[in-house]
Amino acid sequence: MTTAARRRRLRTRLRGERIDVCLITAPVSLRYFSGFIGSTGLLLVTARQATLFLDDRYLEKGRAEARGLTVLPLAGWQDALHQLAANAGRMLTVAFDEADTTVLQARRWQELFPELLWRSRGFALAPLRAVKERDELAAQREAGRRLARAWSAVRPQLAVGMSERQIAGLLDAAVLQHTGAPVPFETIVGSGPHAARPHHSPSDRVLQRGEALLIDMGAAWHGYSVDMTRMLALSPLPATVRRAWRVVAAAQRAALRACRAGVPPRALDLAARRVLRRAGMEAQFTHNLGHGVGLKVHEEPTVGARNHAPLQAGMVITVEPGVYFPGEFGIRIEDTVVVTAHGAEIITPVPREQP
Amino acid sequence: MTTAARRRRLRTRLRGERIDVCLITAPVSLRYFSGFIGSTGLLLVTARQATLFLDDRYLEKGRAEARGLTVLPLAGWQDALHQLAANAGRMLTVAFDEADTTVLQARRWQELFPELLWRSRGFALAPLRAVKERDELAAQREAGRRLARAWSAVRPQLAVGMSERQIAGLLDAAVLQHTGAPVPFETIVGSGPHAARPHHSPSDRVLQRGEALLIDMGAAWHGYSVDMTRMLALSPLPATVRRAWRVVAAAQRAALRACRAGVPPRALDLAARRVLRRAGMEAQFTHNLGHGVGLKVHEEPTVGARNHAPLQAGMVITVEPGVYFPGEFGIRIEDTVVVTAHGAEIITPVPREQP
Repeated sequence: MTTAARRRRLRTRLRGERIDVCLITAPVSLRYFSGFIGSTGLLLVTARQATLFLDDRYLEKGRAEARGLTVLPLAGWQDALHQLAANAGRMLTVAFDEADTTVLQARRWQELFPELLWRSRGFALAPLRAVKERDELAAQREAGRRLARAWSAVRPQLAVGMSERQIAGLLDAAVLQHTGAPVPFETIVGSGPHAARPHHSPSDRVLQRGEALLIDMGAAWHGYSVDMTRMLALSPLPATVRRAWRVVAAAQRAALRACRAGVPPRALDLAARRVLRRAGMEAQFTHNLGHGVGLKVHEEPTVGARNHAPLQAGMVITVEPGVYFPGEFGIRIEDTVVVTAHGAEIITPVPREQP
Repeated sequence: MTTAARRRRLRTRLRGERIDVCLITAPVSLRYFSGFIGSTGLLLVTARQATLFLDDRYLEKGRAEARGLTVLPLAGWQDALHQLAANAGRMLTVAFDEADTTVLQARRWQELFPELLWRSRGFALAPLRAVKERDELAAQREAGRRLARAWSAVRPQLAVGMSERQIAGLLDAAVLQHTGAPVPFETIVGSGPHAARPHHSPSDRVLQRGEALLIDMGAAWHGYSVDMTRMLALSPLPATVRRAWRVVAAAQRAALRACRAGVPPRALDLAARRVLRRAGMEAQFTHNLGHGVGLKVHEEPTVGARNHAPLQAGMVITVEPGVYFPGEFGIRIEDTVVVTAHGAEIITPVPREQP
C-alpha cells in the first residue's frame, strides 16, 4: 500500500470525526503517512491536500522519500495554516495525536492559531497502523528470518562461564551484521536470578552451572521490528526450573492455539493464565501476555486481559508468558506472530530448546 | 554527584516556583534523578520525599539501580498522591515537565486528581541537566576516546568504490565493539551529492572518484553520547569542494576560538557565520551551529544565533558548521566540546583530514 492510500484511510477517519485539519509530527507517523524518515517535520493533512514541511537539513532527503507529496520548507507551515484558516469561510477544526504531542507543543500551537478550533481529545493515529499491509508483513517476516540467522551464528558459542554482557555483545553484533541495523531495543540477557527481572540490563555477571539463561532480543528490517525470547539450558538445571520452563512453554502454546482473527487479546491472555494457574504459578506472571509490534517495538494492540477488542487478520503481536521468582530464576518464552483468519503465523523462527 | 544531590537541586527549583509535587516520567529524567534505567516509571518528588513507582517488570531492577530511594509498585502511585493531597491541609500545586508529557497523559492525570492544582506552564527539567558533573564529563570523554578508537580501526579500510551502507556498517560494528553499545543515532554517510543532505540515511550509492565523503556519527558510554562529523578525501577532489572544505574548517576554528564560559551561543554562531559570509557561503549554512549533548544526543543548550544565554563551564555542546550545495556536494565538520572557563575542550579526538 502506498502512503497515499494510508492518507486516504486517515481522511476517512477525519471525516468521521468532523476534523478539517490534522497535524502530524511524530517520526513514526511521519514515516507511515508520508514515507519521510527523520526526526523532525510536520505533515499537514486536510480533506483535499497533504503537505510535508521539513527544515532545511531534511528538505532534499524528504523530497526523495515522500514521493507524490508537496514538500516545503518548515518555516512556511504557519503561514500555510493561517491561510487555510482564512480561506475556509468558517472556523476550521484541527486535531493532533494526543498520545504523540507534548503539552508544550500543544500550548504553542494553540497560542499561534487562536482562529482554529483545537479538538484532539481521543484522537490517536496508532490504531491506523495496527493492521499491517503486505509490504509491512514482508519486512517483519524478513526481520524474523534475519534474527534467526544471527541467532544461529551465535548460539554454538554460548557457554557457562560467559558474562551477560559478552553474550549480549555477540548477539548485538550478529544482528547488526545480518540486518545492517542495530537491535531495536536493548538486548536482555538474564543469567540465573537475573532472569527474574523481566527488563534486566546485561551485567558482568557470569552464567553459572545449573542456571537457566534468558535472552530477549529483537531485530528490524526496513524499520519493522520483531521481538522474541528464548530460554537456554547450557548445563543441567534443577527440577524446579525445568518444571517452570515446561509450564511456561505450555502456557505459550495455549495462547498461540487461542490466537486468530475475531478473538480478543483477553482470550489469549486467559488461555496462558489458565495453564499457569493449574501449575500454581499465576501469581508469578506479572505482566501482559504481549503487545503489538511494527514500526515501534511496542504498539497497538495491547495483548492483555483488559483488551476485549477482537484481533484482526494482519495484526502483528507478541505472545510472551513468563514467571518470575525474585532472587531465584525467571522463565519467559516469546514469539512474534501474524494474526491470520485461522490462527497465528510465527515469524520468529528461532529454535526452541528443551529444559 | 549522586542522584540525591540532583534531587536537591530539583527541590530548590520547586521551592523557587512554589511547586509542592513534581511528577517525572520521561526515561532520561527518571535516570538522571533516580538512577533507574528503563522505559516506564514514575518518580514523585516533594519537598521532603522522593518515591519511585515501577511496574512489576522493573521493580527488582529499579531497586538495584535507584539506591537510597523508596521504590514501590506502580499500581500504588495514585493512592500515594491522593493521600498526600488529603494530608496537606491545603491545595497542593503539582507540576510535570511540559516538554516530556503528552497531552493524553496530562489530561488523564488532571482527570484522576481534580483535588490538585496543576501548574506546569514553563516547567522543564532539561535545563537542570545542561551543566555536566564530573562523572558525566568522564563518561563523555570516554565515549569520545572510544569513538576515536573505533574510527581508527575502520579508517584504513575506506576507499572509493564502497557503498555508503558498507561504510556505515563497518563504523557501526566498530562502535559496538569498542563501546559495547550501539551508535546513539543513525550514522550519516554521505557520498558526493548525498552529503548535501544534512540528515542523509546511508544508501547503496557507491563513492566515486572526485567525490568528498561526509561521515557524521556518535558513540555512547554509560548512556552519555558524543557526536562528530568528518570529511574525507579518498581521491583528488575538485577545487570548489576543497575550497568549501577549507572555509568550513576555518568557520569551525573561529567558533571554537569564541567558545568559553560566559559567552552566549549566539557569539559562536556569528563567529562561524562571519567566516562563511566572507567566503560567500553564508546562505549555504542552513542549520544551527550546534546543540547540547549528554544523556540525549540533542539537549540543552541550543547553539544558535537566537540563544543569548551565556554558556556555563561544564556544558557539553557540538560545534558543527556546514555548507550544502544541493545536487553537488556538502561539507560539515563537527566536534563535541566541553565548555570551560578559558575555552573549549574537544572530546572527540578523531583526526581531521585535509582536503
